[in-house]
Amino acid sequence: MTTTPDISVLSISSVKDYQTKDASPSLDNDLIIDIIDKQGIIPDVILEQEFNDIVNIFNKSNDDFASFSKYFINKDNDEGLILLSKVINLIYLKKREIQLKSISDSSSSIINEVIQQGDLQIFITNQITNNSAIDKQYLDLGATNLKDFHIEVFTTSLENISIIVASTNPKDSIKSEFNSKIVDSINKSSSSLKKKSGPFLKFVTSAENHQEHRLIISYSKNSTTKFFQLFNQLLKFYDITFSKVHIESYSSDLLLLSFYFNREDNEHISDLMTTLNQILKETSLIYCLPLAHDAFAKKPSEDDEDKNFRLSPQESSYFNIASTFIYHFIDRLSFTNNGSDILAENKNASNSHIADILTSYQQILKQQCFSELLIENVLNKYKKLVVKLFKNFALKHYPKDQNQSGLNLTISYQRLVNGIEPFQDDLEFDEYLKSNVDDQSADYLILKSLKRFNDAVLKTNFFSNDKLAVSFRLDPSKIFDGNSLIFPEIPYGVFFVVGSHFRGFHIRFHDIARGGIRIVKSYNDASYEINKRAMLEENYNLAYTQQKKNKDIPESGSKGVILLKIGHTSERDSKIAFERYCDSIIDILDFGSDKYIDLLGKREILFFGPDENTATLCDFATEYAKSRGCSWWKSFLTGKSASLGGIPHDEYGMTSLSVRSFVENIYKQKGLFDKTLVKFQTGGPDGDLGSNEILLSSDNEVYAAIVDGSGTIVDAEGLDKDELKKLAKNRQTVDHFDKSKLSKSGFFVSIKDKNVKVPSPVTKTEVTIADGMVFRNKFHSEFLFQFIEKIDVFVPCGGRPASINLNNIDLYIDSKTGKSKIPVIVEGANLFITQDCRLKLEAAGCTLVKDSSANKGGVTSSSLEVLASLSLNDADFVERFVSNKDGFYDQYVKYIQQTISENARLEFEQLWKLSQSTGTPISILSDDLSKAINSLNDDLLESIDELFVSQAEFREHLLIEKIIPKVLFEISTESKENVLNNIPVNYQNAMISVYLASRYVYKYGTEVNMGKFLGFISELKN
Amino acid sequence: MTTTPDISVLSISSVKDYQTKDASPSLDNDLIIDIIDKQGIIPDVILEQEFNDIVNIFNKSNDDFASFSKYFINKDNDEGLILLSKVINLIYLKKREIQLKSISDSSSSIINEVIQQGDLQIFITNQITNNSAIDKQYLDLGATNLKDFHIEVFTTSLENISIIVASTNPKDSIKSEFNSKIVDSINKSSSSLKKKSGPFLKFVTSAENHQEHRLIISYSKNSTTKFFQLFNQLLKFYDITFSKVHIESYSSDLLLLSFYFNREDNEHISDLMTTLNQILKETSLIYCLPLAHDAFAKKPSEDDEDKNFRLSPQESSYFNIASTFIYHFIDRLSFTNNGSDILAENKNASNSHIADILTSYQQILKQQCFSELLIENVLNKYKKLVVKLFKNFALKHYPKDQNQSGLNLTISYQRLVNGIEPFQDDLEFDEYLKSNVDDQSADYLILKSLKRFNDAVLKTNFFSNDKLAVSFRLDPSKIFDGNSLIFPEIPYGVFFVVGSHFRGFHIRFHDIARGGIRIVKSYNDASYEINKRAMLEENYNLAYTQQKKNKDIPESGSKGVILLKIGHTSERDSKIAFERYCDSIIDILDFGSDKYIDLLGKREILFFGPDENTATLCDFATEYAKSRGCSWWKSFLTGKSASLGGIPHDEYGMTSLSVRSFVENIYKQKGLFDKTLVKFQTGGPDGDLGSNEILLSSDNEVYAAIVDGSGTIVDAEGLDKDELKKLAKNRQTVDHFDKSKLSKSGFFVSIKDKNVKVPSPVTKTEVTIADGMVFRNKFHSEFLFQFIEKIDVFVPCGGRPASINLNNIDLYIDSKTGKSKIPVIVEGANLFITQDCRLKLEAAGCTLVKDSSANKGGVTSSSLEVLASLSLNDADFVERFVSNKDGFYDQYVKYIQQTISENARLEFEQLWKLSQSTGTPISILSDDLSKAINSLNDDLLESIDELFVSQAEFREHLLIEKIIPKVLFEISTESKENVLNNIPVNYQNAMISVYLASRYVYKYGTEVNMGKFLGFISELKN
Repeated sequence: MTTTPDISVLSISSVKDYQTKDASPSLDNDLIIDIIDKQGIIPDVILEQEFNDIVNIFNKSNDDFASFSKYFINKDNDEGLILLSKVINLIYLKKREIQLKSISDSSSSIINEVIQQGDLQIFITNQITNNSAIDKQYLDLGATNLKDFHIEVFTTSLENISIIVASTNPKDSIKSEFNSKIVDSINKSSSSLKKKSGPFLKFVTSAENHQEHRLIISYSKNSTTKFFQLFNQLLKFYDITFSKVHIESYSSDLLLLSFYFNREDNEHISDLMTTLNQILKETSLIYCLPLAHDAFAKKPSEDDEDKNFRLSPQESSYFNIASTFIYHFIDRLSFTNNGSDILAENKNASNSHIADILTSYQQILKQQCFSELLIENVLNKYKKLVVKLFKNFALKHYPKDQNQSGLNLTISYQRLVNGIEPFQDDLEFDEYLKSNVDDQSADYLILKSLKRFNDAVLKTNFFSNDKLAVSFRLDPSKIFDGNSLIFPEIPYGVFFVVGSHFRGFHIRFHDIARGGIRIVKSYNDASYEINKRAMLEENYNLAYTQQKKNKDIPESGSKGVILLKIGHTSERDSKIAFERYCDSIIDILDFGSDKYIDLLGKREILFFGPDENTATLCDFATEYAKSRGCSWWKSFLTGKSASLGGIPHDEYGMTSLSVRSFVENIYKQKGLFDKTLVKFQTGGPDGDLGSNEILLSSDNEVYAAIVDGSGTIVDAEGLDKDELKKLAKNRQTVDHFDKSKLSKSGFFVSIKDKNVKVPSPVTKTEVTIADGMVFRNKFHSEFLFQFIEKIDVFVPCGGRPASINLNNIDLYIDSKTGKSKIPVIVEGANLFITQDCRLKLEAAGCTLVKDSSANKGGVTSSSLEVLASLSLNDADFVERFVSNKDGFYDQYVKYIQQTISENARLEFEQLWKLSQSTGTPISILSDDLSKAINSLNDDLLESIDELFVSQAEFREHLLIEKIIPKVLFEISTESKENVLNNIPVNYQNAMISVYLASRYVYKYGTEVNMGKFLGFISELKN
Repeated sequence: MTTTPDISVLSISSVKDYQTKDASPSLDNDLIIDIIDKQGIIPDVILEQEFNDIVNIFNKSNDDFASFSKYFINKDNDEGLILLSKVINLIYLKKREIQLKSISDSSSSIINEVIQQGDLQIFITNQITNNSAIDKQYLDLGATNLKDFHIEVFTTSLENISIIVASTNPKDSIKSEFNSKIVDSINKSSSSLKKKSGPFLKFVTSAENHQEHRLIISYSKNSTTKFFQLFNQLLKFYDITFSKVHIESYSSDLLLLSFYFNREDNEHISDLMTTLNQILKETSLIYCLPLAHDAFAKKPSEDDEDKNFRLSPQESSYFNIASTFIYHFIDRLSFTNNGSDILAENKNASNSHIADILTSYQQILKQQCFSELLIENVLNKYKKLVVKLFKNFALKHYPKDQNQSGLNLTISYQRLVNGIEPFQDDLEFDEYLKSNVDDQSADYLILKSLKRFNDAVLKTNFFSNDKLAVSFRLDPSKIFDGNSLIFPEIPYGVFFVVGSHFRGFHIRFHDIARGGIRIVKSYNDASYEINKRAMLEENYNLAYTQQKKNKDIPESGSKGVILLKIGHTSERDSKIAFERYCDSIIDILDFGSDKYIDLLGKREILFFGPDENTATLCDFATEYAKSRGCSWWKSFLTGKSASLGGIPHDEYGMTSLSVRSFVENIYKQKGLFDKTLVKFQTGGPDGDLGSNEILLSSDNEVYAAIVDGSGTIVDAEGLDKDELKKLAKNRQTVDHFDKSKLSKSGFFVSIKDKNVKVPSPVTKTEVTIADGMVFRNKFHSEFLFQFIEKIDVFVPCGGRPASINLNNIDLYIDSKTGKSKIPVIVEGANLFITQDCRLKLEAAGCTLVKDSSANKGGVTSSSLEVLASLSLNDADFVERFVSNKDGFYDQYVKYIQQTISENARLEFEQLWKLSQSTGTPISILSDDLSKAINSLNDDLLESIDELFVSQAEFREHLLIEKIIPKVLFEISTESKENVLNNIPVNYQNAMISVYLASRYVYKYGTEVNMGKFLGFISELKN
């Protein structure tokens, strides 16, 4: 697509060219010497001599001492020199200490000193691989220091002590124009680079002396953890030492690390080139999965057989990923096979028998919650086997680059390190397992699950260099087996993502599916444990329910869940996690790319949506997909802002439109338009549903009370509607209601009020409200009818789920007549009323529409938003649609609004007709309709081709005349054919079958019989 | 009961009298100075002067430097002085370092240096409260150093650095005769002290100068962890500084610590006396529960409100104990109330409904496994509330010592520290809870459970000073509620013990109950987690099944479980844990003692038995109980050796006797004595059952095959019995069988053999055995009938449970006739055959007696062992019974053996009669008999008094004539009355009711009807 800047044509220089030509004063020795003297630590008889020894421990060839001392001399007063001498003194003292301990015993002492003063920090250490201070303070996600900084590492000849200078003083960080050229080139190229935020790895050799190599790594500032420490361990793993390190942070939050290696102190490495190259590859894993590697940082304790069996970064990444996978999938796997056969055993469970079931069942669960810790222990125990499986994994998923050499190189390189062969086939694996592991133990299960992981991976970006996280496309039939209690259906596709501070899943039930991506944060160990444990299920259940909700639209249900690690709860953590989640999934959606092996073998397209903690990230993700050049960037996400072609629900009241359509169809049906109706609403003018409900309110409605985040406003004589509409337009809570427009029996109680008196017209007394918060929370469940005699319609537009439940349902039913006090309820807010209370209210004569029917508007709108972005090409999409060229955008919005009202009307009439004829309550009919539509839909989808055997133009007729909005053809400058071709075939099929299924059910009811359906089809034909 | 040595009459001296009079050469300064010079660290222009400064940092008043340098001068070469100067140099360097860092910044530096050479170790540190080296190397359980040692701590004036010298050189540890007097007095007093191993705490003031106090602590060497560190933190908590410390270890594995305090550097403490006294009390908790206190070692991070709210050791012990309790009991409590009401909701659960149950049930379990970590977090969060509850706990259980002052002192002392009041009553607690904690959260549950803990404690040794662990007697009705699935019955009594490296329970179902104490070790984190989680239940179920087994004896079932902390798996850890478990339980069995408050209000007596990991500790525990002066020491434990009055099962083949009695009654019944029967046995001559089975084998039996730990021996023509008896006498496995006595078709295959050829007479071919181990494991389930044509009797005396199960049962049934191939099976080994295979074998015509009937001999023997030890007084017990005076011991053993055979005969005849008349299989009848006996027994126990209303002599007649063996009256020198009075009344009742119940059932079958029982009673009367 685009080229990377070829920076090797730039003239490269070496370490030397950090000496800048400009004359900066050098250190005059006498001044420093007598400052040292004044500090009186080194006796002055040896002072001169000691000073020189210390100067000489610095590396002479690129005369480090000079550049070291530069940090101290250009301070405006001689404070710098005092610091320098403190450092020299400390070095002297440590030298003595070493000398001291070397007298007759061998324990090398650990040196780890820090001196800091103002914006300078100096570390003297001989444990650079264990030193986490640099990471914690400067590089890490959530690093303590936030200013720009410049870090330089000096190696010395003293007991491999190295001296690190870190300064946040801008003057010190003279950017060598060489580097800034790099940075500019990174920033400035013709079109934006593929992805700014990934690690940029480059490797150069200097022009003059070929013995010197430089490794340049740059990535966006603190976007990972422990990088410096881990990178050092990586060097140590390959037994390479650097002569110098520069770390610079740039204002455009880019971080540049450059490591210098020169030949003569890496003699024992046969070919430095390939080693450094290999190091490059593994750096990207370090960047992605830092935690995976401190596992291998532990010094190999002596007891496991021979010392040289260290895991490489790739292997330990695999390790870490494997144990995460096993943790989530293991007690699903084994559990299924004996939960349901507990059940099968006990077909007709009598009572006592259930007790046994529960007991034995519990035993199982107890043995089965394998903590991740345990899983790691087991994997450690069978390290060889895990490495063998990794090899199989690599053989299957290592992408073939231009020449085959990469893999052989990698693997062959591995072999001579620890000489382990992959398994030939499943049989060899089973034998190996049976012979080494007792087949009744937990280990056996854990290792089988690992094997299962390998078999389930269809695509992965594990082996690509520019990944931000590691993602896997799994084959669901290999990890779910369908007849388990908890996972009744096998999903269609599952994605598994592991990142630096998060893990994530994405589950969908049909090829074409849509659903929100939610980010879960946990605030303490316990809740993290609980979230971790429930993560997969929650994801599954959310996708599963989503499916029921999408009955009118072509996309079935899907859902993504991202779990942030404990301690990462900031806004930024979420953004980074979300970015990497999307990025790594996009990596393996890119059909036909050579960065991964595709065992699925067909094009996939995902549709994400906003959800908990991601609502604000939708634009960003869309831009991001666009910047990655995804052809489907337009339809990637819904919930984006209008400037990106999003159709925001709250602006056009999409959800409220379906609520209103039900409300008004009820009015028409019961002839209520010519009466004034007293209305109660929860959820205020600041919310999406609340504000639009007010704005779309019909004239026969008078508001008696509204409850929202700020408090409760009540006026039995009716709240002033214009005032309410004003609030709704400005999205203000009701505490902004102009109190003077309240009647004398009206009042407002804010959640902060304590002990206020308010009039209660019903009982003709004054009531004191003890606590505004409680009043607001329990207004609908306790106080409502004390203040308003009669309510004709109640539209909940906000409120916690199960706000009306069995404990407080009696308030809504008149105990004298057994009738429901409120004749009409349309449930806008999700699950505001529990199902069994819905049935009670209906049995008491209330006309009630449940949430999954009432608030479908949003779903429909998002779906048509997707359709628009699929059927228009980029040009039309931006210039004619998004820019609303002569009102195209508005026309489309209007069309969506009509469709929402139309669908609601069709559904309502069918619900009403059925409930009148069969007497079944609407809350049940609504589920029956969904079931009927979904199962008819499944039938049609599964045999969509036979359906149109040799009648292709009937199929086209359906798509063009009945399904795709005409306005899209006007917006598009292409012919109708091309518009159709823009839409993926499997999306067309989904559109057709859901159209046929829903129209049939809304017309003929839930009884699907052969003759009627055929009649219906032939009607459509002519 | 006995006195403690009053050591205050001994003349006490002070620190000074460590200067010994004997002339030991002092340090000559010049020699040391030029050694220092040679090491060339201190420039010699300042050498002299520096040396003196360093000498002066030592405490002059008791001129420490001299005694410090003594450690270095009396080495046979000047190696010591070199070490001394290294130390001096190091001190010099650290002094400089401090001086250096004090130049313009404030971070105090941490100094933590160690120099060691030969048998001397010197620590220079200013972090003495964080220093765990002394503990890890010298004091801890599992300390690295095992030699005798002497430790001295010098405080210096340099930046509160203190210098610690630890030497394992015997010469250095001159025991001041003052101390050795103490030690002798500890060892030697008139009768043995109560318990050697508890901490001995004493507090003295020196004779000459009253400003100096000494705290002496002595306990057995490394019997706790982190004591030194924790004690220092305790001093810091009370803000006390010591001037000097001596730690000495004595050969009699006693450890003596003495801390010196002098007035002027503790001015700010108002009255030093009481503070030190308080410290004494809390030392015992530190000793018992070291882990509990490093929780409070964490510096109080700033975020919890104000700094001075530190927990005292008592509170944090309570803390630690509480969270352990909550962990084990919480998901029982809450679980019960909604598991069974899951059930109650679903009285007649149809199939799909079960799925919902399992799912919702699983959710519950998921939310409910509260890790201990979480519980601690919650307790930390509501620290105030926990402290208040501790106060209630203290008010209820603080024993009243002579004068009331102790408590007020303690509590009042507490109040002025953190001024927190206990709760007035339950109501105040509930309000406090409701107002501060959301009643739907996990916190609510955790705190309620803590409250429940307080209500359930009936007795505890928490507040006594000489406890080795903390024990609680809990009221079961407050912590179990009876209708839960997992705990169907509420136990009669529960003990809860928390110790340094273990926790333990003891559960019993009737007042008089007996059962084994098992110690559970865990070898890795995961298995520890699992054992921890399953601990309570396992204990409950073991006690519950034990109850069924004890149907013929007066004691019902009980069980104790001790879980060792992870990492403590050595033999010694078990011994210490067991000792402390018994000791702390004995503490609160001591009826009427003033060391604890007794809310139970009646005498309790426990009967322990051997179990996993405790079989070898029975003697020790018996001795221990004796040494504690427990009147019931004799009956405390069974499984003890004969020298302590134990009747070892294996020596007298008690279990085998009941097995044999069944075998021979079957022979008599089926008239098999005059036939030669081919016998097969699993479990060899080395086992208890195996050897006695061989020794008691009747003449009509010929052994065809035996399987044991060493392999498999087979001879179709019959194994030479004398040879077998020889092996049985010597307890040797069958590999010691003299091969020459095998017939030509006989053979032996050891478990180590690979690919041996053996003859198979049945198929008249030779067979090659691939693997001896597999051959042995699967001989009974696969190969048996290939080598032996026909087997008449099979007595399994060893083998894993469920060795015959549904997978291999077909081998035992002749597929042609459907008949069982082996006509007689008596199941000696526990659960060798699964219940449904027992039924299959019986249905196939096999006469089979199941384990719970066949191997009751051991239980009966232990019970009569207990009876002997209850009814004889100590004198008769030792001189006439244990010493087997004119064969009394042997007579009793013979009586036990007859009773065992007699009981088995009675049970067999009833089983046989019933199975002939009703056709029910014996394996079921055996359970029916147990149930009938147990429920009749419960009825009789519950109304035992009405039973003997005004017919006391009938009761006596039963006890003396029918129940208590006559031989006991002969052994006893006391009258029959007194013998009866020796036996606790509730034990007599248990004896009577089990006698009536079992005799009735064995005579009249399981049908208990009123008339027959009365007839039975009146029969007994005349």
